[in-house]
Parts: sequence; C-alpha cells; structure tokens
Amino acid sequence: MCQRITSRQNPLLRHLKKLLTSRAYREEQRQFAGEGTKLLEEAVRWEAGLRLVAAADGVPVRPLPPGARLVRVPADVLASLSQMQAPQGVLFACDLPAPRPLDLRPGALVVEGLQDPGNLGTILRTADALEAPVVLAEGCADPYNPKTVRAAMGALFRSPPQQAGRAAVAAQCRQRGIPLLAAALTPDAADIRQVPLDRAAVVVGSEGRGVSRELLDLADGTVVIPMSPRCESLNAAVAAAILLWQMRR
Amino acid sequence: MCQRITSRQNPLLRHLKKLLTSRAYREEQRQFAGEGTKLLEEAVRWEAGLRLVAAADGVPVRPLPPGARLVRVPADVLASLSQMQAPQGVLFACDLPAPRPLDLRPGALVVEGLQDPGNLGTILRTADALEAPVVLAEGCADPYNPKTVRAAMGALFRSPPQQAGRAAVAAQCRQRGIPLLAAALTPDAADIRQVPLDRAAVVVGSEGRGVSRELLDLADGTVVIPMSPRCESLNAAVAAAILLWQMRR
Repeated sequence: MCQRITSRQNPLLRHLKKLLTSRAYREEQRQFAGEGTKLLEEAVRWEAGLRLVAAADGVPVRPLPPGARLVRVPADVLASLSQMQAPQGVLFACDLPAPRPLDLRPGALVVEGLQDPGNLGTILRTADALEAPVVLAEGCADPYNPKTVRAAMGALFRSPPQQAGRAAVAAQCRQRGIPLLAAALTPDAADIRQVPLDRAAVVVGSEGRGVSRELLDLADGTVVIPMSPRCESLNAAVAAAILLWQMRR
Repeated sequence: MCQRITSRQNPLLRHLKKLLTSRAYREEQRQFAGEGTKLLEEAVRWEAGLRLVAAADGVPVRPLPPGARLVRVPADVLASLSQMQAPQGVLFACDLPAPRPLDLRPGALVVEGLQDPGNLGTILRTADALEAPVVLAEGCADPYNPKTVRAAMGALFRSPPQQAGRAAVAAQCRQRGIPLLAAALTPDAADIRQVPLDRAAVVVGSEGRGVSRELLDLADGTVVIPMSPRCESLNAAVAAAILLWQMRR
C-alpha cells in the first residue's frame, strides 16, 4: 500500500513543486523533477536515480525500482503542481547525477550561453541520438529545468551533459590536441564541409548573440553552416543538429 | 498624420485579432497577421503584401510601402491583442500569397501531418536558409498561424510554402522522374548517407505518428537518419534540418 496525500501543503508535494520551479532548490537538494508517464518510464528504464513518484489516483504506474517511493494524489491537486499545459498525472523526482571531471573527446558539442530551456533540451535529445557528448559552458539554461527535461525526452537519464567553464574546456582541448572550433557568422569562418569536424570540439552560442568574445579568443578557429545570404541565422537547436550530424558523418 | 485608435472594438483591431486567432478568417480574408518590429522590417524588406500596421504609441516605425496603412494604438490596448508573452508593440496584416500550381523539383521537402506550429515555422526557416522549397501536404498546421509566422523568422515573406495533396505530389514526382522518399523508422529504410538525397523529394511526417500509410504507399522508398538504438526519434524540426542539410550537400 502506498501513501495517499490530499493536501497541497504536504512536504512531499511542496518538495516536488520547488524542484520544478527553483534551480537553487534543485542544486541544494541535488534532485530534479520530471513530468509525464512516458518520461517516468524512461527514468525507470535508465536507472536515473528515481526517488519519488507522485501519481494521480487511477493513473497506472509500473513497478518502481528499490529506493523509489510512490504516493497517490487526487488528480486536481497534482495538476495544480504541474508545469505542463496538459498534465498527465505523474510527477517524479530523481537524484541529480554526481558531478564528473571534464572529459572532452573529439566530436563533443560545447554549448555556451543558450538560455532557451526548450532549445537546450532539443539539443540534448539530438546529441544523445547522434551519440555526441555535450559540455555546457557559461550562461546556459539549467539542463534540469522541467522544460529542458521534457524536451530532452529521456536524454538526461542516459547521457547527462558535462558542465565546465570555457577556460577549462579550452585548456583540455589544447592538452589533448582537439581543435576547438566556434560556430560563428564571421567572414573568415570555414565552411563546415571543408573542415574535419569529427576530430574537433565545436561550440554553439546563444541564438541572439552567438559565441562570446572570450570563447572566440580561446578557440582555434571558426566554422559556419553555409546558408542563403537572405537569412541571418538558424534556430540554435537546428544549427546544433546540423553541426552534430556533420561531426558524425 | 496617421489615425489613432483607442477602442478595442474598432473594426481594424478586431480584424487583426481575428487574423491572429482564426484560420478560417485568414482564408476568408486572404490575409494573415504578424507581430514584432523585427518581423515587420522583414515584411517591408521582402515586399510581403503589407496592408495594415498597428503600432503602440511611441514605438518607432520606418516608412511603409504604398498600400500599407499605419494606425497608432495605446500600448495596453495593442498588448491585449497580442499572442506573445512579451508584446513588442507592433501588429501587422499582410495579404496571403496567391495560390500557385505545384512545381516540385529535386531537393524539395514535403511535410505531412505536422501539427506543431512552432516546429513548422522552424522547418520553414531552415528550408529558406538552406534554399529548399517546401510543400505542405495533408494535416499540417496552418503556416500562417502567428506562432508559425514568428518561428519562421521572415521565411514566409521570402519563400512561402506550396500546398498540395499527397496524391498530387506523388503524381508530379512520377511525371518528372523525381524519386519520392519518405523518412521513416522502418527496418528496410536506407541510411540517408547511402542515397542521392539531392535528386529526390523527401517527406517528413508528424512527430508522433510519422509519415502516413497512404504516403508510404505512394513513395518510392524510405530513408532513415541513423541514430543510437537507445533513442526513439528526433524532434521533427531537427529531423527536417538534418534531411535538408544532407539534401543540400
């Protein structure tokens, strides 16, 4: 028998709500929250440190791994915590992965200053599908923001991104002989088809401002996705997808 | 001197609101609406049949082309019409482009059943940047939905998509000798790197269901973006971007 909770003020529900809404709280508690039955299945399947599942009455939940606790909640109470437009009646909390030392390899994607949580999640999903490691440098949205968790479609459970400052990224690239190339719309940028991208680490920057001056100065060169002169730019997740595909080829 | 409007009930403002919210009204009026100063600049630059601009008091507007009328509106009244989270104080209406007969060529992207307006706009933006024509077949979101207009970032003014049924697409492909290939996760699908994609027309389907059975039956074959077996799929706009890039190479 699992516990049934009916009050929004219950500490477990307040905990889930704060995990969904506060980056500081996520980092203090070393946990994050996800939503939805499909995402819960992925968390179970990939042994993503599941700790707590709150399911609306009547929503079926498969057996949980040891260490995870199930509570039942009235659907309207659970929906009031949800960040989704169409809540699916499942919220859950997982441990944040333990911090790992930076370990760059050729074919890595470095993301800097990307503030849109949905775009970041889409990039993590794409990189996971194309088997590229991701490093988040300064200024990115929190990868454990619920919008990012949702857009990443399970990629965070399988392949959590590394996090490191741009100076550390550049230093390790130099040490390991991996060219660090920044995607930029500068006139001298090399066409990505003309560069052995699979041997490099490639940086994508924020949609509005691109890669920072500091990181451009640290990089070994710049590359560009050739496009119509009538267009200014690509969506950041689309640019990352084309770079990741070109790196894999 | 331009007219100043202060009432939400003014027919011009009601017209803009209905253009933003109703596909049937857009089709009846043969107009669509956009939002934002940047997008207005693109509409002016690409001579996109601009008819009406409603700007909040104090928001600078550059000279408009002949045939376009400017009205001034209090910022709060204009914001009440907006579909954006952070309204920029500019709404405008353009003529819908005249329908054109289908004109397929190798390198075209056919989109079927794509319901998400933001994803559709991102695909139109990407195709415009990579200089690929787009045909919308059955079941797509309205390309003149304001979310699509926004995500397309001016692509609709430069390169409006064609619209045609799947049977017409297949018939013209056959007539012109253009292989029609559907992106699908079927076991017999060919790796996109092994197929001369630049000579084909390629179909992407809805994120949830993929390309329809009807279109699969009409197509000459299926292609797949190779990816990690741990992942089920890519975001539809990301899949389209990788296909478009591969078609262009």
